[in-house]
Amino acid sequence: MVNVRIFVTYKQSVFDPQGETIKDAIHSLGHDEVTAVKVGKFFDVTLDTNEDEVATAVKEIDDQLLVNFNMETYTYQVMEEA
Amino acid sequence: MVNVRIFVTYKQSVFDPQGETIKDAIHSLGHDEVTAVKVGKFFDVTLDTNEDEVATAVKEIDDQLLVNFNMETYTYQVMEEA
Repeated sequence: MVNVRIFVTYKQSVFDPQGETIKDAIHSLGHDEVTAVKVGKFFDVTLDTNEDEVATAVKEIDDQLLVNFNMETYTYQVMEEA
Repeated sequence: MVNVRIFVTYKQSVFDPQGETIKDAIHSLGHDEVTAVKVGKFFDVTLDTNEDEVATAVKEIDDQLLVNFNMETYTYQVMEEA
């Protein structure tokens, strides 16, 4: 079993209105030290496979399902292997 | 400057229908080795402060804004200090 965390974010060039709104809300709480907020999604995926096959599986799943490559990009990290 | 990544997820006891739906979709792609999918949000927050003050700020921001403690829980990690 391999646990993978896939992070999906807007590309740097894409404006993140939700992040800007949250930053404003944080400022209104008095936390003016916050200078930037970016929002993203993550997917904790458990695979019954070995670590060698994870990269291929994650790429296929992201390409075909999880990521809108027009606006988004992804990274992932292997959390643990049990 | 400190960069913090805050992860917000459903509590273990709360059913995650989006994760279940994505798992089914992944299976229909042929990736039957995927046994579980959990979905979460993350927030990349940049704070113009030092690391000592991060824990207090993150707790306040999460308590007052980002987390619905009825259904959700959070963790965070300091990504880097510049």
